[in-house]
Amino acid sequence: MDYKVREKSGYTPQIGHLVSMMEYARKTTLDAVSGLSTEQLDYLPTEKSNSIGALLLHMAAVEVGFQIEVFDGRSPNDEEKTERGAAYSLGHQGRSEINGNPLDFYLDKLVKVRQRTLAEFRLRNDKLLYEDIQWDGQPSNHFFIWFHVMEDEINHRGQIRIQRKMVE
Amino acid sequence: MDYKVREKSGYTPQIGHLVSMMEYARKTTLDAVSGLSTEQLDYLPTEKSNSIGALLLHMAAVEVGFQIEVFDGRSPNDEEKTERGAAYSLGHQGRSEINGNPLDFYLDKLVKVRQRTLAEFRLRNDKLLYEDIQWDGQPSNHFFIWFHVMEDEINHRGQIRIQRKMVE
Repeated sequence: MDYKVREKSGYTPQIGHLVSMMEYARKTTLDAVSGLSTEQLDYLPTEKSNSIGALLLHMAAVEVGFQIEVFDGRSPNDEEKTERGAAYSLGHQGRSEINGNPLDFYLDKLVKVRQRTLAEFRLRNDKLLYEDIQWDGQPSNHFFIWFHVMEDEINHRGQIRIQRKMVE
Repeated sequence: MDYKVREKSGYTPQIGHLVSMMEYARKTTLDAVSGLSTEQLDYLPTEKSNSIGALLLHMAAVEVGFQIEVFDGRSPNDEEKTERGAAYSLGHQGRSEINGNPLDFYLDKLVKVRQRTLAEFRLRNDKLLYEDIQWDGQPSNHFFIWFHVMEDEINHRGQIRIQRKMVE
Protein backbone atom coordinates (compact mmCIF):
# COMPACT_ATOMS: atom_id res chain seq x y z
CA MET A 1 0.00 0.00 0.00
CA ASP A 2 0.85 3.65 -0.32
CA TYR A 3 2.06 5.23 2.93
CA LYS A 4 0.96 8.75 2.12
CA VAL A 5 -1.62 11.00 3.67
CA ARG A 6 -3.08 13.10 0.87
CA GLU A 7 -6.04 13.60 -1.43
CA LYS A 8 -7.58 10.37 -2.64
CA SER A 9 -9.43 9.52 -5.82
CA GLY A 10 -13.19 9.28 -5.30
CA TYR A 11 -13.24 11.60 -2.26
CA THR A 12 -13.11 15.35 -1.77
CA PRO A 13 -9.68 16.61 -0.55
CA GLN A 14 -10.09 16.57 3.24
CA ILE A 15 -12.15 13.38 3.24
CA GLY A 16 -9.34 11.85 1.16
CA HIS A 17 -6.80 12.76 3.85
CA LEU A 18 -9.02 11.23 6.50
CA VAL A 19 -9.57 8.03 4.50
CA SER A 20 -5.79 7.72 3.92
CA MET A 21 -5.29 7.65 7.67
CA MET A 22 -8.27 5.39 8.39
CA GLU A 23 -7.08 2.86 5.83
CA TYR A 24 -3.59 2.72 7.30
CA ALA A 25 -5.06 2.24 10.77
CA ARG A 26 -7.28 -0.58 9.51
CA LYS A 27 -4.36 -2.29 7.76
CA THR A 28 -2.42 -2.37 11.02
CA THR A 29 -5.45 -3.75 12.88
CA LEU A 30 -5.80 -6.57 10.36
CA ASP A 31 -2.05 -7.30 10.59
CA ALA A 32 -2.32 -7.41 14.38
CA VAL A 33 -4.99 -10.16 14.36
CA SER A 34 -3.97 -12.14 11.27
CA GLY A 35 -4.24 -15.89 11.77
CA LEU A 36 -5.67 -15.85 15.31
CA SER A 37 -7.78 -18.82 16.41
CA THR A 38 -11.10 -18.61 18.23
CA GLU A 39 -9.33 -19.59 21.43
CA GLN A 40 -6.77 -16.81 21.00
CA LEU A 41 -9.52 -14.31 20.15
CA ASP A 42 -11.36 -15.26 23.36
CA TYR A 43 -8.33 -15.22 25.68
CA LEU A 44 -8.55 -12.96 28.75
CA PRO A 45 -5.15 -12.11 30.25
CA THR A 46 -6.79 -10.91 33.47
CA GLU A 47 -10.34 -11.13 34.79
CA LYS A 48 -10.89 -7.48 33.93
CA SER A 49 -9.46 -7.68 30.41
CA ASN A 50 -11.28 -7.44 27.11
CA SER A 51 -10.62 -10.25 24.65
CA ILE A 52 -9.14 -9.46 21.25
CA GLY A 53 -12.46 -10.56 19.72
CA ALA A 54 -14.37 -8.11 21.89
CA LEU A 55 -11.98 -5.30 20.96
CA LEU A 56 -12.53 -6.01 17.25
CA LEU A 57 -16.29 -5.98 17.65
CA HIS A 58 -15.98 -2.79 19.68
CA MET A 59 -14.22 -1.08 16.76
CA ALA A 60 -17.13 -1.96 14.48
CA ALA A 61 -19.72 -0.89 17.07
CA VAL A 62 -18.09 2.51 17.62
CA GLU A 63 -18.09 3.11 13.88
CA VAL A 64 -21.76 2.12 13.53
CA GLY A 65 -22.68 4.49 16.35
CA PHE A 66 -21.03 7.44 14.64
CA GLN A 67 -22.48 6.49 11.26
CA ILE A 68 -25.91 6.96 12.82
CA GLU A 69 -24.89 10.25 14.47
CA VAL A 70 -23.09 11.74 11.46
CA PHE A 71 -24.74 10.25 8.37
CA ASP A 72 -28.26 9.75 9.69
CA GLY A 73 -28.14 12.85 11.91
CA ARG A 74 -29.73 11.23 14.95
CA SER A 75 -28.84 9.29 18.10
CA PRO A 76 -28.94 5.47 18.04
CA ASN A 77 -32.41 4.15 18.97
CA ASP A 78 -33.10 1.54 21.64
CA GLU A 79 -32.92 -1.39 19.23
CA GLU A 80 -29.57 -0.19 17.90
CA LYS A 81 -28.27 0.40 21.40
CA THR A 82 -29.26 -3.13 22.43
CA GLU A 83 -27.71 -4.65 19.33
CA ARG A 84 -24.34 -3.02 19.87
CA GLY A 85 -24.53 -3.22 23.66
CA ALA A 86 -21.81 -5.67 24.62
CA ALA A 87 -19.38 -4.59 21.94
CA TYR A 88 -19.79 -0.92 22.68
CA SER A 89 -19.55 -1.22 26.45
CA LEU A 90 -16.89 -3.93 26.65
CA GLY A 91 -16.16 -4.97 30.26
CA HIS A 92 -18.36 -7.56 31.94
CA GLN A 93 -21.04 -7.65 29.25
CA GLY A 94 -18.44 -8.07 26.52
CA ARG A 95 -16.69 -10.90 28.38
CA SER A 96 -19.90 -12.86 28.85
CA GLU A 97 -21.46 -12.29 25.43
CA ILE A 98 -18.64 -12.05 22.91
CA ASN A 99 -16.85 -15.37 22.43
CA GLY A 100 -16.75 -18.55 20.41
CA ASN A 101 -16.45 -16.77 17.07
CA PRO A 102 -13.82 -17.41 14.38
CA LEU A 103 -11.71 -14.52 13.12
CA ASP A 104 -13.81 -14.20 9.96
CA PHE A 105 -16.84 -13.30 12.05
CA TYR A 106 -15.08 -10.16 13.27
CA LEU A 107 -13.42 -9.34 9.96
CA ASP A 108 -16.72 -9.61 8.07
CA LYS A 109 -18.31 -7.21 10.53
CA LEU A 110 -15.46 -4.72 10.23
CA VAL A 111 -15.54 -4.86 6.42
CA LYS A 112 -19.31 -4.49 6.21
CA VAL A 113 -19.38 -1.52 8.55
CA ARG A 114 -16.47 0.19 6.84
CA GLN A 115 -18.13 -0.22 3.44
CA ARG A 116 -20.97 2.03 4.55
CA THR A 117 -18.59 4.67 5.91
CA LEU A 118 -16.64 4.81 2.65
CA ALA A 119 -19.80 4.80 0.52
CA GLU A 120 -21.18 7.74 2.52
CA PHE A 121 -17.87 9.59 2.28
CA ARG A 122 -17.94 9.20 -1.52
CA LEU A 123 -21.39 10.82 -1.62
CA ARG A 124 -20.43 13.76 0.62
CA ASN A 125 -17.96 16.61 0.43
CA ASP A 126 -15.56 18.33 2.80
CA LYS A 127 -18.30 20.54 4.17
CA LEU A 128 -19.54 17.55 6.16
CA LEU A 129 -16.31 17.42 8.14
CA TYR A 130 -16.60 20.97 9.46
CA GLU A 131 -20.18 20.69 10.67
CA ASP A 132 -20.43 21.05 14.42
CA ILE A 133 -21.55 18.21 16.66
CA GLN A 134 -21.40 17.56 20.39
CA TRP A 135 -18.86 14.98 21.48
CA ASP A 136 -18.73 13.82 25.07
CA GLY A 137 -20.81 16.90 25.92
CA GLN A 138 -18.27 19.25 24.34
CA PRO A 139 -18.19 21.27 21.11
CA SER A 140 -16.72 19.17 18.33
CA ASN A 141 -16.97 18.66 14.57
CA HIS A 142 -17.43 15.69 12.24
CA PHE A 143 -13.75 15.67 11.31
CA PHE A 144 -12.93 15.07 14.95
CA ILE A 145 -15.59 12.33 15.17
CA TRP A 146 -13.99 10.33 12.35
CA PHE A 147 -10.52 11.02 13.70
CA HIS A 148 -11.79 9.66 17.01
CA VAL A 149 -13.19 6.51 15.38
CA MET A 150 -9.70 5.91 13.98
CA GLU A 151 -7.80 6.83 17.12
CA ASP A 152 -10.00 4.56 19.23
CA GLU A 153 -9.18 1.73 16.81
CA ILE A 154 -5.45 2.48 17.08
CA ASN A 155 -5.68 2.59 20.88
CA HIS A 156 -7.22 -0.90 20.91
CA ARG A 157 -4.81 -2.17 18.27
CA GLY A 158 -2.04 -1.31 20.73
CA GLN A 159 -3.80 -3.40 23.34
CA ILE A 160 -4.33 -6.24 20.86
CA ARG A 161 -0.61 -6.28 20.08
CA ILE A 162 0.37 -6.91 23.68
CA GLN A 163 -2.44 -9.42 24.25
CA ARG A 164 -1.37 -11.29 21.11
CA LYS A 165 2.13 -11.67 22.53
CA MET A 166 0.58 -13.47 25.51
CA VAL A 167 -1.21 -16.09 23.39
CA GLU A 168 1.53 -16.96 20.93
CA MET B 1 -10.07 22.08 25.10
CA ASP B 2 -11.71 22.30 21.71
CA TYR B 3 -12.56 18.90 20.19
CA LYS B 4 -12.39 20.00 16.59
CA VAL B 5 -10.05 19.04 13.79
CA ARG B 6 -9.62 22.11 11.62
CA GLU B 7 -7.34 24.99 10.69
CA LYS B 8 -5.44 26.41 13.62
CA SER B 9 -4.10 29.89 14.29
CA GLY B 10 -0.34 30.12 13.74
CA TYR B 11 -0.18 27.22 11.31
CA THR B 12 -0.97 26.77 7.62
CA PRO B 13 -4.27 24.90 6.99
CA GLN B 14 -3.15 21.28 6.72
CA ILE B 15 -0.52 21.63 9.45
CA GLY B 16 -3.32 23.07 11.60
CA HIS B 17 -5.42 19.95 11.05
CA LEU B 18 -2.46 17.76 11.96
CA VAL B 19 -1.68 19.77 15.10
CA SER B 20 -5.36 19.58 16.17
CA MET B 21 -5.11 15.80 16.11
CA MET B 22 -1.66 15.64 17.71
CA GLU B 23 -2.79 17.87 20.58
CA TYR B 24 -5.81 15.71 21.31
CA ALA B 25 -3.64 12.59 21.26
CA ARG B 26 -1.19 14.22 23.67
CA LYS B 27 -3.96 15.30 26.03
CA THR B 28 -5.18 11.73 26.28
CA THR B 29 -1.64 10.48 26.93
CA LEU B 30 -1.23 12.97 29.78
CA ASP B 31 -4.62 11.98 31.20
CA ALA B 32 -3.62 8.31 31.03
CA VAL B 33 -0.50 8.81 33.18
CA SER B 34 -1.67 11.56 35.50
CA GLY B 35 -0.57 11.07 39.10
CA LEU B 36 1.47 7.89 38.58
CA SER B 37 4.32 7.18 41.01
CA THR B 38 7.82 6.08 40.05
CA GLU B 39 6.95 2.57 41.14
CA GLN B 40 3.86 2.53 38.96
CA LEU B 41 5.80 3.97 36.03
CA ASP B 42 8.39 1.18 36.40
CA TYR B 43 5.94 -1.70 36.82
CA LEU B 44 6.29 -4.61 34.38
CA PRO B 45 3.15 -6.76 34.12
CA THR B 46 5.11 -9.55 32.41
CA GLU B 47 8.82 -10.13 31.87
CA LYS B 48 8.41 -9.10 28.23
CA SER B 49 6.40 -5.94 28.93
CA ASN B 50 7.47 -2.34 28.55
CA SER B 51 6.91 -0.13 31.57
CA ILE B 52 4.67 2.92 31.28
CA GLY B 53 7.77 5.06 31.81
CA ALA B 54 9.56 3.38 28.92
CA LEU B 55 6.51 3.86 26.68
CA LEU B 56 6.46 7.59 27.50
CA LEU B 57 10.15 7.96 26.73
CA HIS B 58 9.59 5.97 23.55
CA MET B 59 7.00 8.52 22.39
CA ALA B 60 9.52 11.32 22.82
CA ALA B 61 12.28 9.32 21.11
CA VAL B 62 10.15 8.52 18.07
CA GLU B 63 9.31 12.21 17.71
CA VAL B 64 12.97 13.27 17.99
CA GLY B 65 13.92 10.74 15.31
CA PHE B 66 11.41 12.15 12.85
CA GLN B 67 12.35 15.74 13.72
CA ILE B 68 15.83 14.92 12.49
CA GLU B 69 14.52 13.16 9.36
CA VAL B 70 11.90 15.77 8.43
CA PHE B 71 13.20 19.10 9.76
CA ASP B 72 16.92 18.50 9.48
CA GLY B 73 16.62 16.36 6.34
CA ARG B 74 19.06 13.68 7.45
CA SER B 75 19.20 10.38 9.31
CA PRO B 76 20.06 10.37 13.01
CA ASN B 77 23.82 10.13 13.59
CA ASP B 78 25.54 7.58 15.85
CA GLU B 79 25.48 9.86 18.90
CA GLU B 80 21.76 10.53 18.44
CA LYS B 81 21.06 6.83 17.93
CA THR B 82 22.94 5.94 21.12
CA GLU B 83 21.15 8.65 23.09
CA ARG B 84 17.69 7.48 22.11
CA GLY B 85 18.67 3.79 22.03
CA ALA B 86 16.74 2.25 24.92
CA ALA B 87 13.66 4.40 24.50
CA TYR B 88 13.45 3.83 20.78
CA SER B 89 14.00 0.10 20.88
CA LEU B 90 12.05 -0.69 24.05
CA GLY B 91 12.26 -4.39 24.98
CA HIS B 92 15.23 -5.65 26.98
CA GLN B 93 17.28 -2.46 26.72
CA GLY B 94 14.33 -0.35 27.81
CA ARG B 95 13.60 -2.58 30.80
CA SER B 96 17.16 -2.42 32.06
CA GLU B 97 17.89 1.25 31.41
CA ILE B 98 14.63 3.15 31.89
CA ASN B 99 13.50 3.18 35.50
CA GLY B 100 13.66 5.09 38.74
CA ASN B 101 12.35 8.33 37.29
CA PRO B 102 9.44 10.42 38.59
CA LEU B 103 6.57 11.29 36.24
CA ASP B 104 7.91 14.81 35.71
CA PHE B 105 11.06 13.40 34.13
CA TYR B 106 8.97 11.91 31.33
CA LEU B 107 6.58 14.84 31.05
CA ASP B 108 9.45 17.34 30.78
CA LYS B 109 10.97 15.30 27.98
CA LEU B 110 7.65 15.08 26.10
CA VAL B 111 7.03 18.82 26.45
CA LYS B 112 10.53 19.79 25.37
CA VAL B 113 10.45 17.58 22.30
CA ARG B 114 6.98 18.70 21.29
CA GLN B 115 8.01 22.36 21.59
CA ARG B 116 10.50 21.89 18.77
CA THR B 117 7.93 20.14 16.55
CA LEU B 118 5.41 22.94 16.99
CA ALA B 119 8.03 25.66 16.53
CA GLU B 120 9.16 24.06 13.27
CA PHE B 121 5.55 23.68 12.11
CA ARG B 122 4.96 27.38 12.70
CA LEU B 123 7.93 28.20 10.45
CA ARG B 124 6.86 25.88 7.63
CA ASN B 125 3.88 25.61 5.32
CA ASP B 126 1.67 22.83 3.97
CA LYS B 127 4.13 22.09 1.17
CA LEU B 128 6.31 20.34 3.74
CA LEU B 129 3.61 17.74 4.39
CA TYR B 130 3.43 16.59 0.78
CA GLU B 131 7.15 16.12 0.28
CA ASP B 132 8.05 12.50 -0.35
CA ILE B 133 10.14 10.49 2.08
CA GLN B 134 10.83 6.78 2.51
CA TRP B 135 9.14 5.14 5.47
CA ASP B 136 9.94 1.58 6.40
CA GLY B 137 11.47 1.20 2.94
CA GLN B 138 8.25 2.31 1.22
CA PRO B 139 7.13 5.52 -0.53
CA SER B 140 5.62 7.91 1.98
CA ASN B 141 5.24 11.61 2.66
CA HIS B 142 5.82 13.93 5.60
CA PHE B 143 2.12 14.10 6.41
CA PHE B 144 2.15 10.36 6.94
CA ILE B 145 5.29 10.62 9.09
CA TRP B 146 3.63 13.01 11.53
CA PHE B 147 0.41 11.02 11.45
CA HIS B 148 2.54 8.01 12.31
CA VAL B 149 4.21 9.82 15.24
CA MET B 150 0.72 10.47 16.58
CA GLU B 151 -0.69 7.03 15.87
CA ASP B 152 2.29 5.37 17.53
CA GLU B 153 1.60 7.50 20.60
CA ILE B 154 -2.09 6.51 20.57
CA ASN B 155 -1.15 2.84 20.19
CA HIS B 156 1.04 3.04 23.30
CA ARG B 157 -1.53 5.10 25.18
CA GLY B 158 -3.89 2.15 24.71
CA GLN B 159 -1.27 -0.09 26.28
CA ILE B 160 -0.66 2.38 29.10
CA ARG B 161 -4.38 2.41 29.90
CA ILE B 162 -4.49 -1.33 30.49
CA GLN B 163 -1.19 -1.38 32.37
CA ARG B 164 -2.43 1.43 34.59
CA LYS B 165 -5.45 -0.68 35.57
CA MET B 166 -3.00 -3.30 36.86
CA VAL B 167 -1.16 -0.93 39.20
CA GLU B 168 -4.12 0.89 40.73
